[in-house]
Amino acid sequence: MAEINGITETLAAAAINGETSAAGAGDSDDVVTPWNVQTKSAAGVDYTKLIRLFGSQPVETALLDKFEQVTGKPMPHLLRRKIFFSHRDLDQILNVYSSKKPFYLYTGRGPSGEAMHLGHLIPFLFTKQLQDLFDIPLVIQLTDDEKFLWKDLTLEKANELAKENAKDIIAVGFDPEKTFIFSDLDFMAQEPSFYRNILRVQKAVTYSQAKGVFGFTESDHIGKVGFPAIQAVPAFCSTFPFIFGKRKDIPCLIPCGIDQDPYFRITRDVAPKLGFCKPSLLHSSFIPSLQGAQTKMSSSDPQSSIYLTDTPAQIKNKINKYAFSGGRQTVEEHREKGGDCDVDISYQYLTFFLEDDARLEQIRQDYTNGKLLTGELKKELIVLLQALVQDHQKRRAAVTDEMVEQFMKPRKLKYDY
Amino acid sequence: MAEINGITETLAAAAINGETSAAGAGDSDDVVTPWNVQTKSAAGVDYTKLIRLFGSQPVETALLDKFEQVTGKPMPHLLRRKIFFSHRDLDQILNVYSSKKPFYLYTGRGPSGEAMHLGHLIPFLFTKQLQDLFDIPLVIQLTDDEKFLWKDLTLEKANELAKENAKDIIAVGFDPEKTFIFSDLDFMAQEPSFYRNILRVQKAVTYSQAKGVFGFTESDHIGKVGFPAIQAVPAFCSTFPFIFGKRKDIPCLIPCGIDQDPYFRITRDVAPKLGFCKPSLLHSSFIPSLQGAQTKMSSSDPQSSIYLTDTPAQIKNKINKYAFSGGRQTVEEHREKGGDCDVDISYQYLTFFLEDDARLEQIRQDYTNGKLLTGELKKELIVLLQALVQDHQKRRAAVTDEMVEQFMKPRKLKYDY
Repeated sequence: MAEINGITETLAAAAINGETSAAGAGDSDDVVTPWNVQTKSAAGVDYTKLIRLFGSQPVETALLDKFEQVTGKPMPHLLRRKIFFSHRDLDQILNVYSSKKPFYLYTGRGPSGEAMHLGHLIPFLFTKQLQDLFDIPLVIQLTDDEKFLWKDLTLEKANELAKENAKDIIAVGFDPEKTFIFSDLDFMAQEPSFYRNILRVQKAVTYSQAKGVFGFTESDHIGKVGFPAIQAVPAFCSTFPFIFGKRKDIPCLIPCGIDQDPYFRITRDVAPKLGFCKPSLLHSSFIPSLQGAQTKMSSSDPQSSIYLTDTPAQIKNKINKYAFSGGRQTVEEHREKGGDCDVDISYQYLTFFLEDDARLEQIRQDYTNGKLLTGELKKELIVLLQALVQDHQKRRAAVTDEMVEQFMKPRKLKYDY
Repeated sequence: MAEINGITETLAAAAINGETSAAGAGDSDDVVTPWNVQTKSAAGVDYTKLIRLFGSQPVETALLDKFEQVTGKPMPHLLRRKIFFSHRDLDQILNVYSSKKPFYLYTGRGPSGEAMHLGHLIPFLFTKQLQDLFDIPLVIQLTDDEKFLWKDLTLEKANELAKENAKDIIAVGFDPEKTFIFSDLDFMAQEPSFYRNILRVQKAVTYSQAKGVFGFTESDHIGKVGFPAIQAVPAFCSTFPFIFGKRKDIPCLIPCGIDQDPYFRITRDVAPKLGFCKPSLLHSSFIPSLQGAQTKMSSSDPQSSIYLTDTPAQIKNKINKYAFSGGRQTVEEHREKGGDCDVDISYQYLTFFLEDDARLEQIRQDYTNGKLLTGELKKELIVLLQALVQDHQKRRAAVTDEMVEQFMKPRKLKYDY
């Protein structure tokens, strides 16, 4: 899935300005674009405003009730806690599931040379939970072509990184019988339907529309202009005839960062014109940087991030040194007044990674009433993330080139439709 | 090779206006764009002006002398008669040949549902003569993707037409051991280098540049915007590793209609930036319509064209009925004053198709001095074209699906580099 970070801020601003004026937003000092998150509030981005800006729907409790009712199982904690806070047509995909009709999952990543950080992991962790829950096929797009187009990177390097990144993704634990991972550069020469569906989408999107959504200028190269179609087509099941046969009517659900929504707005716009299903979406919020919720975790600032390659000592040091604290200046003051979970980054990270609701609530209460000190809260997070990252590293080390090849081979997947 | 006819006249005009003002042309009442040829002169288009407009080079006698000197063989009549009237770097490709370094030929066609007419045949007849002369590999691109993007046509139909058109092309007599014909839709899923080189070109061309050359507007779809790269890359040998191995330094010569030059202006512009060779070009003039040299032969006007599917009777009737004559009103007047070869369409067609110089010169003299009557001149052309078209039909009938498959299979070609 393309990270749109490569687009200049000017473009991002241009794209958003159009939406902003339409939605009547822009009434605060926050900078909220899909490519840049800056707010003066230590509590982070105003996601209510973002939903208004993008025209998506908030994930509401009634919808979550329906989710549990339809699946008959407890929902993933990232949904329960509304870290996936926004959606498009999630209710419709739940109807598909409850009527025992088929659907599939689609997510992706723009392969990058830097190690993946915890923020990159979130959509994949969540997607795995959805795959386990629904027991359905999953396609994962690695946009090595997009990285070549946006970055100063050779095609060979971009393709190599796609395969390296695939190892991290496989390490998340996806079902090899139900998961197809593909690099655009490779897949283009493997499956004729990929290029054909790209052409269908490109024919249905004017330059003016693409410019409106992405803020292209005339000095952007023509590769960027055509790219939105490439990220669109995995949302159409006919791109994968080796999985779905001749069917054109199988919808998908796309879990992704809210920053990817512009691509799927275009996808949803063209889908009915081409006789394809509109994809449903679930958007995650940003994991904040260690320094605070004013910015998101970013590869471009190593001190803001915990990487999947960090050692236990690095994790400990980063959290102790950088993780913004909602605690008080002195132990005495903290015991008396308590800490502020709303701005405390260690607590925020626990909401992302500590699945046990009761334990999380206990921590929240203890920290809020001053029973738990900042050092103790950080300790809690450090132990959790050290284990999570080490487990990931172990699983990644066990991922062989053969396994990558197996996941990336166009093939029939196992499903019960 | 894409016919750009599908582009609206407005676009064509926009593209040309830019060039026109730069070249200081536009000083007559002619409409001369790559997509529309209209002139008030019965002698046809002012090709000198077109060369100035496009910034190409005229095919001059000294260059033709060099051609014969280097090849040691008589040159094809279409070159000798300067029907291929314009070029870019033909001298350089002759230097390549004379120093016994490798090069290849590249031409193509936008597959169309209508039967091919004589005008479509010209570049292929000429390319075959060049292949025979130089004994080198030839790649022929069928832009079924482009036809889908520009016309109201399904992908399936466009791909089917590509294969039908391939039969007509094969019937011209290309060497099966030295010729690779490909449909873009098929080739994209056969050879990874195709998409990779397309991306390289797209990254090197801004929207502004593409707009300048093709006159795109914001309401054009993004498929059109990206397409120029697809017609560019067969000019780079690394697109065909199964033919040229890992070499990136083998140049090509592109024989094509002058209307295709905009694509190759872009190609030549990006080639050095990407470490590829600039292609050389040879541009043909338009074969006039039966009604006269004021317009070119066009599929959209059946009465203006002789088709490769026409019967001998149809050929005879069309020429007798429609072929504009440079003869006089009465036999007496004709005997006295003679005919005008410069405007006589039958004579013009003979310059395209009658290879025998002495015979052609005899006809010219006899017609000019009134010895040969219009009916007799037309008879000469009728007999020639009936034989040419019938021979083509026979050869085409003998082209099997297996032969098409063989020509269209990515494979090593036979050459002596």
